[in-house]
This record gives sequence, structure tokens and C-alpha cells, in this order.
Amino acid sequence: MIENIVERRIMWGDLDALGIVFYPRYYEWFDGCAHQFFEVIGISHDHLWKTHGIVFGLAETRCRYLSAGRYHQRVKILTRLENLSRKGLTLQHIITHGKDNKTMVVGIEERICMDASNTENLKITTIPETVYQALEQALYIS
Amino acid sequence: MIENIVERRIMWGDLDALGIVFYPRYYEWFDGCAHQFFEVIGISHDHLWKTHGIVFGLAETRCRYLSAGRYHQRVKILTRLENLSRKGLTLQHIITHGKDNKTMVVGIEERICMDASNTENLKITTIPETVYQALEQALYIS
Amino acid sequence: MIENIVERRIMWGDLDALGIVFYPRYYEWFDGCAHQFFEVIGISHDHLWKTHGIVFGLAETRCRYLSAGRYHQRVKILTRLENLSRKGLTLQHIITHGKDNKTMVVGIEERICMDASNTENLKITTIPETVYQALEQALYIS
Amino acid sequence: MIENIVERRIMWGDLDALGIVFYPRYYEWFDGCAHQFFEVIGISHDHLWKTHGIVFGLAETRCRYLSAGRYHQRVKILTRLENLSRKGLTLQHIITHGKDNKTMVVGIEERICMDASNTENLKITTIPETVYQALEQALYIS
Repeated sequence: MIENIVERRIMWGDLDALGIVFYPRYYEWFDGCAHQFFEVIGISHDHLWKTHGIVFGLAETRCRYLSAGRYHQRVKILTRLENLSRKGLTLQHIITHGKDNKTMVVGIEERICMDASNTENLKITTIPETVYQALEQALYIS
Repeated sequence: MIENIVERRIMWGDLDALGIVFYPRYYEWFDGCAHQFFEVIGISHDHLWKTHGIVFGLAETRCRYLSAGRYHQRVKILTRLENLSRKGLTLQHIITHGKDNKTMVVGIEERICMDASNTENLKITTIPETVYQALEQALYIS
Repeated sequence: MIENIVERRIMWGDLDALGIVFYPRYYEWFDGCAHQFFEVIGISHDHLWKTHGIVFGLAETRCRYLSAGRYHQRVKILTRLENLSRKGLTLQHIITHGKDNKTMVVGIEERICMDASNTENLKITTIPETVYQALEQALYIS
Repeated sequence: MIENIVERRIMWGDLDALGIVFYPRYYEWFDGCAHQFFEVIGISHDHLWKTHGIVFGLAETRCRYLSAGRYHQRVKILTRLENLSRKGLTLQHIITHGKDNKTMVVGIEERICMDASNTENLKITTIPETVYQALEQALYIS
């Protein structure tokens, strides 16, 4: 079980005119954290693409906003693998803030295994066995 | 019942390295379309903020990705009000493409009425009566 | 001589916490307008890439900010070809606003012709003759 | 003399369809690094805004692109104060990459001191004396 944590600071350019984070920014961070998570468990994007010809594309995303992110706050983004099937997986991203790690935002990415050998025509495919094993070991058991 | 349609073109800067739309861009468009929807039904952001001291902040968002958006495709984004309560509302955004209006992406924004008179301390509040009436007339009945 | 004009509206997501446009957004618009300009004069990105194996990459960009862009203003972005050489070109983008077309922002993109047949190793190359001719006819003479 | 260095990694969402950094992203990073630079020398955005009612707004930006940024490269962004006058300042941002710190991108931000006490009507003003002194000590002498 692996939980990857990325720390970042909320920047001026992340804010909207109310001075709180413009919500699509959170999804940008989730995508970046997903890439880092895959890398940490040994199945980096380059490995997936160049060795296996696959990418984990998005089928669905969701996000709940519990408290507003504000200028220059330091946040932690914890990423873990919630679910795994033969064709896809679910990542959960939890953004916390402050000494007591108050939850700010909780996001979900449902990703599916895509054959990307022809990027003009992406097709759902089965996760290669060695990739599946790496994911299985990283699965979060609550 | 009102369905607002915004047309736009997928731009180079919307794409990722696979040549398909980077998914947080869809949420940026949804937010823009939400603002236009409110304006069309007579409750523009400026009206809400300056007259009533409120904004419709985000509680939750969701999106399903059915087919990949590609360079310079012309898409339509249809926005409608799916649900309305005394403290919040649900917007649905449907992105279609091509002559047969093939569905590309379906998004949901759950927004809640926030007292924004003090932007440092946003609080949930009841939707003012005249705003509620404007929303009620715009409610989508399928 | 061609001047392409794109109209757009400043959206909530374009703003910073002061309620004015966050400046990197202007560059996003310039890039989009450059693509549209090339398309209008018959040398779309797809044509350049698929027929000639080239792209017009960025060597330098500049922008002057004369007045602040604000929420839901309708702006015009005028794009024209200021300079042309055998290996590159200069686009000027002028953003205006209001009935009197007050200038808000002026931007420059210096683009060079890149051999993109191998995207891992982009190299400067000479503009193909037919592409050069299309550009020459579009050159702005003040 | 202070040179602030921010390290970051190029993320998937920073790339365009050629697999290289979409250039407006560099400007987003510059803006973030400018904010961090000001903070490091003791004149954070909050201090400037809340104590002095000013912001350093943008008058002009420029950027030269020397080599393409690619997926997951680790880059350093060095920020320094190149010029200072009674009403404005010039920041230089240099992005390097690799063991030999090869220069990837060089950017300039010309910022002017704005009275932001009324955000609806930003006006150029003189830099307050204590702020000017903090900047003077941070001035880069090559």
C-alpha cells in the first residue's frame, strides 16, 4: 500500500476574483499527482507508453470542495489507489491544509487502460500483467 | 425552461501531449458556461454579488468523458438547470460535436448559495426570493 | 494583407484575485489567434504538419499591458503578420475593448519554422516555398 | 543581492500536442516566482496589499525560448531583480535544466507600483520608502 504525498503552495495564478482557488486548478494538480503516483510505483508514463503502448485515460472525475483554498497556503495532496480492475483503476486525491491536516478538497479519478499505439484511435484494453501486479501491490486497503 | 448553448473551438492550448483535450480544460469551460447561463436568465454574477452579496460557489463537480476532444473541433456546450433547492442548484453541461451532435463530455456542477459579503469568510445562505424565482423558471423538466 | 479578428469575452476563470485578467491568459489567446490566422490564410496547423512536417514554434514573445481586462468585457483580438523572413515570422496581436476600440494589450510572437518530422528533435528549417507565398500575401503593410 | 531559486518538475498538463511546454505556462511560473521573490525579501503580497495598499502590476513581459521543455524534466527557475526605479522594477527569470544548468527559457517582467486601494481603479504610484529599501538591497549587480 502506497500513499504518495505532494506538497505545494497555492499561487496567485490559482486564485479567482474572490481570492479563492479556481476549481479547475485542483484537477490540474490531481492529474500531476496521478502521474507522480504511477512513477513512484514503477510504472511511469514513459514506461507505460514506450514499453506497453498504453496510457491510463480518464473515464470520469469527481471532486468535493470542503473549504476554500487561499493565497500562499501550503497544502498536501495525498494520492492513493482505491480500486483496481483488469481494465481500469480509481485514484483518490485528498488535499489537506494546516497543522491539523484539515481536509480541503477530495477528488476521484476513474482511469481506464487505453491502447495508445495509435493516438488517433484510442481503444480500451486490458492492463498488462506486470503493470497490474505493480498496481495491485499499491492498492490501498482502508 | 432554458437551455443555453455556447459554441467554441478546441484550441492548441487545450490539448495534451496525446493531442486530446487535457481534462481540466472542460471544467474551465463549464465554469464559463455557468456564468453565461446565470446571465441569460437575468441573475448575472455582478447582479448576484452587488445586489445580493451572494455567489454560487462549488460544492461538488463531476465529469464523464465519452470521446476525446481533438484539435480545432467545433463543439457545442449545452447548459441547463437540473435541480434547485433553497440553498443550492445543479447545473448540467453537455458537450457535443459534429453534425449528429455526438456527446463528448457530460459534466455536473453542484453549486451552493454563499454569502460573499465578507470574502474572507464565505458562508452558506438561502437563495434570495427573486433569484430563486428566476432559477425556478429556468429549471429543466425532462 | 489580412487582419484576422477574434472576438471573445473575458471569463471568470481568466481573472486573478484583483478581478483583472491574469496575464498568462493573454498569451493563451495569442496562441489560439495565431493558429486561426494561419488557418485563414490557408496554412492551417494540420496542413503545415501533415503536408510539410513543420510547425511555427516560438522563439520569443512579448506583451505590453495598457489597461486591465475585467469580468465579462467583450474584447477583439486583431492578429496580423508584421514581418516575414525565410526562416521565421512575427505576428502582432492587438486586444481592444469598447465602442472606441481602446487598446488593452499589445502582444508579439516571434515564430520560427521548425522541422517537426521528429518531435523529439525539433530543428530550425527554411519555410517551404508555397507556405512562404501564402505568408507573403498576408504580410501587413502599414 | 538575492537570487531566489524555485525547483519544479514539468508536468503532463504543461505540455502541448508536440509534447513540449505550452509557452503561456512559463509565464504562469514567472508570476509565481515573482511572488516568492517578493516574499523572500520581506515584502510579500499580503504585506504590500494590507500595509501599503499597493501591488506590483505588469507593464510588460518578454520571454525567449532557447530549448524545449519536456515531460517530467526537473527545472530550476532563478529569479533576480535587474532594475529598480521609484515607480517600478524589472525581474529576470532564468529557467535552466540538467546537470550543466543549460538555459531553457529567459523571461522578463516589468512591474509597476500600483495603488490598489480601489481595485476598480488601479493607479500608478511611487514605491513606499521601506519597500524601496528592501528592493534596493535585493538588486542584482552583475
